[in-house]
Amino acid sequence: MSFSLPERVTLKGPNFIREVFERGVGVDGFISFGIGNPAPEAIPVEIIEKAFDEVVHSNPMSLLQYGPMQGDARLAELTLQRLVKAHHMNPEGQGLIISNGAGQLLGLVPITVIETGDEVYMDEFTFTSAINSVRNMGGKAVGIKTDEYGMIPAELEKAAQSGKGKYIYLIPNFQNPTGITMPLERRKEIYAVASKYDLFIYEDDPYGEIRFAGEYIPTFKSFDTEDRVLYAGSYSKTLSAGLRVGFLFGPAKIIEVIQALKNNTAGQMPLVTQKVVAYVLDTIDYDAHLDNVRKVYKMKCDALLNAFDTYASSKVHLTKPTGGMFAWMTMPESVDCDAFFEACMDKNVGIIKCGAFAADGAGEGHAFRLSYTVPTVEEITKGMEILGALTKEFCGE
Amino acid sequence: MSFSLPERVTLKGPNFIREVFERGVGVDGFISFGIGNPAPEAIPVEIIEKAFDEVVHSNPMSLLQYGPMQGDARLAELTLQRLVKAHHMNPEGQGLIISNGAGQLLGLVPITVIETGDEVYMDEFTFTSAINSVRNMGGKAVGIKTDEYGMIPAELEKAAQSGKGKYIYLIPNFQNPTGITMPLERRKEIYAVASKYDLFIYEDDPYGEIRFAGEYIPTFKSFDTEDRVLYAGSYSKTLSAGLRVGFLFGPAKIIEVIQALKNNTAGQMPLVTQKVVAYVLDTIDYDAHLDNVRKVYKMKCDALLNAFDTYASSKVHLTKPTGGMFAWMTMPESVDCDAFFEACMDKNVGIIKCGAFAADGAGEGHAFRLSYTVPTVEEITKGMEILGALTKEFCGE
Ligand SMILES: Cc1ncc(COP(=O)(O)O)c(C=O)c1O
Ligand SMILES: Cc1ncc(COP(=O)(O)O)c(C=O)c1O
Repeated sequence: MSFSLPERVTLKGPNFIREVFERGVGVDGFISFGIGNPAPEAIPVEIIEKAFDEVVHSNPMSLLQYGPMQGDARLAELTLQRLVKAHHMNPEGQGLIISNGAGQLLGLVPITVIETGDEVYMDEFTFTSAINSVRNMGGKAVGIKTDEYGMIPAELEKAAQSGKGKYIYLIPNFQNPTGITMPLERRKEIYAVASKYDLFIYEDDPYGEIRFAGEYIPTFKSFDTEDRVLYAGSYSKTLSAGLRVGFLFGPAKIIEVIQALKNNTAGQMPLVTQKVVAYVLDTIDYDAHLDNVRKVYKMKCDALLNAFDTYASSKVHLTKPTGGMFAWMTMPESVDCDAFFEACMDKNVGIIKCGAFAADGAGEGHAFRLSYTVPTVEEITKGMEILGALTKEFCGE
Repeated sequence: MSFSLPERVTLKGPNFIREVFERGVGVDGFISFGIGNPAPEAIPVEIIEKAFDEVVHSNPMSLLQYGPMQGDARLAELTLQRLVKAHHMNPEGQGLIISNGAGQLLGLVPITVIETGDEVYMDEFTFTSAINSVRNMGGKAVGIKTDEYGMIPAELEKAAQSGKGKYIYLIPNFQNPTGITMPLERRKEIYAVASKYDLFIYEDDPYGEIRFAGEYIPTFKSFDTEDRVLYAGSYSKTLSAGLRVGFLFGPAKIIEVIQALKNNTAGQMPLVTQKVVAYVLDTIDYDAHLDNVRKVYKMKCDALLNAFDTYASSKVHLTKPTGGMFAWMTMPESVDCDAFFEACMDKNVGIIKCGAFAADGAGEGHAFRLSYTVPTVEEITKGMEILGALTKEFCGE
């Protein structure tokens, strides 16, 4: 039989990240700025191994039977404590969901709220799964123009006038893919537009804890007086991506509905991974650990920026991340970016074409995402030397 | 702000399972036939503990970074091998998804295929999450009348004439909640209706490996010459529910779309739990293990049926499961089932009212689900003695 499928699920974007991965696999000396993995040396491997030993053997039966739908209570408690203490969020009237990474939330939120034709506003280049899951649910993933401070409020307002908006999806800290961080003033302006058009804000902050330069900027959630912010976080970048533990914090009423949808459509998650994260948080000095993570990321980011300054054409622009994992390289409009990409691949350097991150209506873009977390400092420097030389070839000095 | 939500996600069924759980918690001597957990003594705890030790310490970094979206390759291979060898499924043109239990598939399938108003046909009393997730996606979870052999083909055909049908959801083996198994002839009749109305069949078979009486009956998938069956299985009942590992096997084209939707909306699952299941399958004699599981389940089911014969009113009917975890007790129409339920609770015996499992349009029902896997044989006997006496009180000898 031919399974007749809704159009919404048959939409496919380009998979440039996988392409770079597959073409680079097994190629000797291939340097990839394409992989979005956290830095391996920042993962507290031994502590996590010990946590598994403790958690698995202390009460195995409790891990091997069905557990509570809402997940591990201790993990929820520790997560909430940190949101309140380190990020000044007010827990009153709010709820928390423990999820299969922040990634599961990118699905759960639109699955819960989207009706066909609803619009979701997001940066014109943003995280691929956030775009795809809105489209998969029949929503329109509307790309809003950005500047060096992130989404432009006037552009957002123009779009919101359609009256079809449901929410604004934002990665305010160290955005994926651009590395841009939105200043407080801009956050307040965006919040005002959300308020005016009664949109809610989905604040996706998996990188927030990894600031290695500049000043801490309050989250949207911390000044959310109107209860319109859902705040998503993750332990993927601070502890381990493979354990798949994230969380969503927001107004209890909507959190309850999302939790119920999660129960019905996804079921509970494994308890063992949640308990391992809780055990690690209970055991280590998390702030000291984060300082160490930040140090590693800063070192690698500095290597990228320094090598770029040394080797790249002055016609090419690179963002200066103050945290997170990504920088965004913009080429002059005259450059054939496909040809540039292929030239990099020919020289065994992998970067990601901006098309991978393009929301609906995004301009063509002349940019690439560079991730600096997986290669070593030596590889970063070498890779940027090669890439820098190519920028000069394509754009002039 | 008030989050405006689609009606589809605000629908709520009764939560009788949780009610019984919560009212029974901490009550001394409470015997629960309500919990749907596998029998604890059938879980190979020590083998799983050992598997964790091996998997966690042999290559921890590979577990702690992002892994392949499609999950652990060895687990997929072992799962496929078993489907082919033990269940005579033809792998040609088919694909496999590893999922967060079979529970995640109950969501993923309707999320992928349902358009508002689509009808899904299911037994009038069936697994709650299957009902809810269809409703949550804006579909109609249409309950079809059943007899002692399961769904009645003529009733299915009547419903399918609406032309709005998308698929048929079935638990052909040891159904949850009734314990009924559909004979081969009935399966063929249902398949013929599916074929006539171009419906696909979602065959949910988490209990299939736990047959402890009667003859093996071929799965729908094994005679699926028209490529219209999606077959779901799980390691929850055979190894461990808490590890959250299930799978979906079906036509490659639709499997690919569901996998893509899973990638976008749910992300990858933890690798560690998948590798633990693969390790266990690679290490133990799985068939011998299953024999042991079946022995435990048979012993408990026999205790239930024997005690029912000894103590219960002849006016009350109990299904005779040949596998799985559940039996279904039907009362005469004259009985006030709410009052009967409360009388049981007053005597510290927990059972689940049929309303918990009612699809759209299901009759009122005068039945209860009894799960015999968690209580000990002594508790089962004692619980049935109490319950039996109450059936006589309510219905006469
Ligand atoms: C912006 C953003 N949100 C969410 C995620 C998902 O992270 P995880 O599911 O590992 O928590 C990522 C991962 O790359 C991301 O970049
Ligand atoms: C019919 C049926 N399908 C699916 C499931 C989900 O099982 P799991 O997600 O643990 O594999 C259950 C569990 O009770 C069930 O009864």
